[in-house]
Amino acid sequence: MAELIFTEDPEDPRLDDFRDLSTADRRPDRPGGRGLVIAEGTVVVERMLASRYPVRALLGVERRVRDLDLSGVDAPAYVTSAETMASVVGFHLNRGVLAVADRPAPPVVSEIIAGAQVLAVLEGVGDHENLGSIFRNASALGVDGVLLGPGCSDPLYRRSVRVSMGHVLRVPFAPLDGWPEGLNLLRESGFTVAALTPRPGSVPLRGLREKVGERVALMLGAEGPGLTAEAITAADLAVRIEMVAGVDSLNVATAAAVAFHEVAATR
Amino acid sequence: MAELIFTEDPEDPRLDDFRDLSTADRRPDRPGGRGLVIAEGTVVVERMLASRYPVRALLGVERRVRDLDLSGVDAPAYVTSAETMASVVGFHLNRGVLAVADRPAPPVVSEIIAGAQVLAVLEGVGDHENLGSIFRNASALGVDGVLLGPGCSDPLYRRSVRVSMGHVLRVPFAPLDGWPEGLNLLRESGFTVAALTPRPGSVPLRGLREKVGERVALMLGAEGPGLTAEAITAADLAVRIEMVAGVDSLNVATAAAVAFHEVAATR
Repeated sequence: MAELIFTEDPEDPRLDDFRDLSTADRRPDRPGGRGLVIAEGTVVVERMLASRYPVRALLGVERRVRDLDLSGVDAPAYVTSAETMASVVGFHLNRGVLAVADRPAPPVVSEIIAGAQVLAVLEGVGDHENLGSIFRNASALGVDGVLLGPGCSDPLYRRSVRVSMGHVLRVPFAPLDGWPEGLNLLRESGFTVAALTPRPGSVPLRGLREKVGERVALMLGAEGPGLTAEAITAADLAVRIEMVAGVDSLNVATAAAVAFHEVAATR
Repeated sequence: MAELIFTEDPEDPRLDDFRDLSTADRRPDRPGGRGLVIAEGTVVVERMLASRYPVRALLGVERRVRDLDLSGVDAPAYVTSAETMASVVGFHLNRGVLAVADRPAPPVVSEIIAGAQVLAVLEGVGDHENLGSIFRNASALGVDGVLLGPGCSDPLYRRSVRVSMGHVLRVPFAPLDGWPEGLNLLRESGFTVAALTPRPGSVPLRGLREKVGERVALMLGAEGPGLTAEAITAADLAVRIEMVAGVDSLNVATAAAVAFHEVAATR
C-alpha cells in the first residue's frame, strides 16, 4: 500500500523526480542520459501501475490520488495542491496526477518474437506523437509487440507516453539490431515480413490476411519518406493501402491502424 | 494570371484578409460571423487553387509565391518578407505562403448523396483536429462526401483546414437537416446506414463490405461518448471495430480510416 505524504513545499527534495517536466526527457545524470518514465493523468497512471515498470513515486492533488487503487503499490504518493504541483513540474497540469517509473531493461527481441503472432517493425519513425499513436493503435488492434529499426525515437519520451495513452507501457518493444539483416530473425521464426509502401508492384493490403501465414510482421516507415529501399528489398512482400490517385499518403499511425486491423484485429 | 504585388508595409490595408490569423475564425462583420477560409503552406494553397473555393488573395515570401502555378488564378498575390508576413498574421509562419477564399454556399445534401457511393456521417465531432483528419482520411480512401449531424464543428476553421491538408476543400460536405430523421434521405437513395459503435450486438467491421449493398453511409460519433442512442437506433445496422478487451477506443479519425478502408478504398 502506497503511503500518502502531504507536502506544500515546492522545494521539497522528495519531489525532484517531478521537477521541470518539460525538460525531463534529458537527464545527463542518469544511465543513457535518458529521463525517467512519466505518466500523466489517471488513465495513464493506472496503466503504469498495472505495468512491469517499477514505479518510484506518485504526485497529485488529493482527489486524484485517492481515486487510484494503490493497494498493491510500493511507492510513496505525494499529495499537494494544484499550485504547488504547477510550481514543481514547471507548468499547469490539468490532469492532476503523475507517476514516475524507472526504465527497466528492454525485453529481449527473441522473447518478443517468440510470444507474438503479429508484430510491427518501424523504421525512421522519429516523431514522438506518431510513435505514441502507433502504440495506442497496436494495443487496441492486437499487435503483440513493436521492433524499432534505425531512426525511431524513444517510445518512453514523455510526449509519446501521453499520446499513446500509456500503451507504450503495455506493448513490449525493443530495438532490432542489424538493419535490415536483423529481419532474418523474424523470418527464421516463421514470420512473413510485409513492407507497407505505395510503390508499384506492391499487393493491396485488402486480402493480405489470406496471402500470408500465421505470423506477420508489418513494416512501416516515416510519413513522407516511407521505408528505405533496402528495407523494402529485405521484406518478403510489399503491400500498399489502396488510395485515391493524387492524394498524399495517410499519416503513418493511421496507415498502421488500417494495416493492424486488416492483419491483427480479431485474428 | 495572378498579379504579383510587392509590399513591405505591415499596415497595408490590402493585407487585411491575412491579419491576426489566430483569431481569424471569428468575424462578426461577416455573414454567419465566420471567417474566410485560410490555406497555409504550398500543399494546402495549391489544393485551394484547384478547388471550387473563390480565392480572394495570396500572401507569401517571393520564393514560395513563385513556386505556385498562378496561370489560372484571378486574384492578387502579395509578396513580402517573412518579417512583414509575421507582423501581419500575428505570429511566425514557417510555411511561407497563404491564400484566403470566400465561403461558397455549401453543396445541397441531395446533390452530395446523388453522386456518392460511400459517405461519412458525423455526429458530435467538435474537435477541429479530429474533423480535419477525418477529411484527410476520407479523401485518401475514396469517401465521396461528408454529412454533418449535430455537434460538429466547422470544417473550414483554420486548424481543420490545416490538419486536413486541404482536403476539406476537396471532399464535399454539408449539414444534414433533421436528426436523426434526416438519415431517411440516405435510405431513400439506397444507402445502408452503418453506425460505428462498440455496443454489444454490433457486427464486426471486417466483412461488412459483403453484408451491405452498393451504397454505404458510415456514421461516426465523437471520441469518448460515441454516437447517441437515437443515432444508433436510426441506423440500419451497428458495426464495431474488433479490439482487444480493456483497451480504450481508437481515436475517431483513426477509427474512420479503418472503416473507410474496409468499405470505400478500392471499391
